[in-house]
Parts: sequence; C-alpha cells; structure tokens
Amino acid sequence: MRISQLSSQTGVTVATIKFYLRDGLLPAGQRTARNQAEYNEGHCRRLIVIRTLTEVMQLDLASTRRLLHAIDDHDLPLSELYQEIGLALYSDRSTFAHAEQLTEAYAEVNSFFEHVGWTIDAGAPGRHRLAQVIAAMRRLGCEPGVKFFTPYADVAERLAEQELDLLPDEIVGAERGAAVMRSMLLDVVLVTLRRLAHEHRVTMRSKTATP
Amino acid sequence: MRISQLSSQTGVTVATIKFYLRDGLLPAGQRTARNQAEYNEGHCRRLIVIRTLTEVMQLDLASTRRLLHAIDDHDLPLSELYQEIGLALYSDRSTFAHAEQLTEAYAEVNSFFEHVGWTIDAGAPGRHRLAQVIAAMRRLGCEPGVKFFTPYADVAERLAEQELDLLPDEIVGAERGAAVMRSMLLDVVLVTLRRLAHEHRVTMRSKTATP
Repeated sequence: MRISQLSSQTGVTVATIKFYLRDGLLPAGQRTARNQAEYNEGHCRRLIVIRTLTEVMQLDLASTRRLLHAIDDHDLPLSELYQEIGLALYSDRSTFAHAEQLTEAYAEVNSFFEHVGWTIDAGAPGRHRLAQVIAAMRRLGCEPGVKFFTPYADVAERLAEQELDLLPDEIVGAERGAAVMRSMLLDVVLVTLRRLAHEHRVTMRSKTATP
Repeated sequence: MRISQLSSQTGVTVATIKFYLRDGLLPAGQRTARNQAEYNEGHCRRLIVIRTLTEVMQLDLASTRRLLHAIDDHDLPLSELYQEIGLALYSDRSTFAHAEQLTEAYAEVNSFFEHVGWTIDAGAPGRHRLAQVIAAMRRLGCEPGVKFFTPYADVAERLAEQELDLLPDEIVGAERGAAVMRSMLLDVVLVTLRRLAHEHRVTMRSKTATP
C-alpha cells in the first residue's frame, strides 16, 4: 500500500509517518519509484504499536525507541525484555529526597524484597521508584511503613502469575511484542480501575453517611 | 525562616521556590522588609507536596495546580476530591482509536461497570482511559476481552476499601491532603510492584526451564 493508505488505515497522519520513517522507528518501505514506496501489513502493525506506546502509555520517543529495539532483538532473554519495560516506564532518575533519606529508603526496599522473597536485579529502576515513594511518604508524614506494601506485592505477584500463564512456553516473533504490549496495557487497566474503585467506594460511603 | 533556609530544608532551589511563588502554587510569605519575607512550616510542607506531585507523581504544573486547588477547597466533598485525582492523572484526551472503535469500547466499559456493580461518574476520565486501552488491545490483536479485567477490578476494590478504612470518619484540613497524597503514592507502589513481580516471576521461570 502507499503511504496515504497506511495513514488512512492507521489514523496516523502522513507527516507523522514520515517523521517515524526518518527517525527509524518505522522501517523504510519498498522503494517503487523515486519518490514512492510500498508499505505492508507489518508497517501497519508497527505503527499501531508505536501509537499505543506514545499515546496510550504516554512514553517519550527515546523510551519508545529503546523498547521497540528490545522487542525486535529476538536473542534478548524474556527476563531482560521485561526489565526493559521497567526502564522504559521509570527511566526517570530525578532525586526527590536528600541523599541520606534515599539511602535509608533503598535499604528498606532491599529488606522488603527479602521479606516477600523476590529476586530483583540490583539495577532495576523499580527500586529507585519505590525508594522515592518511601522517602516522599516519610517527608509528607503519611508513611504507613513499608510493611503496608505487602498486600500490594501479593496482589502484584498473583496478577503477574496469571498473565504469564497466558503465554506459550516459548514466545517467539510477533508474540513477544504482543505479550509486552498486553502487559503494559494491563498496568494502565489496574491503576485506572484502582482510581475508579476509590471514586466508587467513596461515593458509596458518603451515601450511607448522609441518609 | 528566610527563603534560603526554606530551600536548604526542602532541597528545592531558591529559583524554583521563587517560580512557585510567582505562579501562586506556594502562598506568599510574610513580608518583613522590601525584599525579604518570612516563611513557616506550612510553606515547607506545601513545597514537599508540590515536589511529590511534580517529581514522584510526574504531574505537569497545570494538573498540580488543579489538584492543590481541590485539596485546599475544604467544602469540596471527598468523592469529588477523589475525582479530581483522576482528572489530574488522566486529563489526557488524545484519541488513539478511530471514533467508531472508541464508541464501541465505551459501551464495553459501561457494561463492565454494570458487571462489577460500580457507580462511576459519566465524566470520569478513567472511562476514557479504559476505552483507549480496549481499543488499543483490539487493534494490536492481543485483546483478552473486557471480562479479563474482572480480577483487576476485584483487587482494585479490595485495596481501595483497605485504604479508605485507614481514614478517620471525617477527614479535615491537612488530613485531606495527606490522604490524597498517600492514595496517589500507593498507585505508584502498586504499578511498580507489578512490574517487579513480572521481572521476578519471569526470572524464576527461566531458571527452572534451563537446569
């Protein structure tokens, strides 16, 4: 198909497609004339993946590029591919807390992982994110203690197990990409439902409180 | 305290504090001389809240302003305050899917809420976000069906209940802010633990697969 068809099928403007082509996010089409190229279903799918990452997951272009690269690298073990998702989502290294507060929070994160029995890479960006949250809670005076995290970890582990059970024993080719996308989209589902559950329960409580 | 002390106590640069003052995010100090003002513990706490929202929660300034305004408005019912959190987090209205795909997805979201028995405001931004996810899953061909969301809703509701149980019957003043901040930080905790649980389980599985 021509670039205009690729655009109408995916809803992505021709200008944006050209930008992705220049950037290398989208592989070049098959050149058919000096100023013309043919695109196929693979380009279509790739465009939808790019848009899901940038629009729905709201990743920046650098994280999108990095994650696509990891999905494309079929030699990358699945465990490292999942680590790449973490990097794409939490690559931010902003230091909210003072150095000593953060050191303390890191130690708490470590003992929490021991407590729940998780093997987590020393460089996993999730560590930094959790340490930031602990430091923030402490500074805000609303700290419920890291032990309060345990039910969240139990829930997270159970849902992860359920999702991994859906995967075939060996996932190859396009399935890798689909598994990564589904896993990331279910992140959004969970956190959105969590917000809505709060709204729902608070509304219910205020109704019973004011007869 | 002087602005320099406010800066050293919070770790926020004087230039950034001045920016927040000009912007109105931080209320003015008590003027003591032509070019000098006194700040108090309230300013300190407010700065920490602003930094938590912008650094840890990664909200933009418009969302931060809006949410702080809602926290400050003590006449706002708690249920509306929780809706404001949703707006701050998912105010994005980008349309990833074609109009008809989104209409279909919205209908699915509605019947899902009926299925789980949740009362959700028609304008809740979470609706849009879930519809976007459903449309994205469908376009990616990795759609597990909206029924797959049910365990996520169960978990979300249970955790929301637990957190709301921690609140006093009537939360007033600074407690409102603390409750909102804790709730948002626990969002980050849950989604981060979910990512780490995936890493942990995938690593475990690959270890048992290759003896």
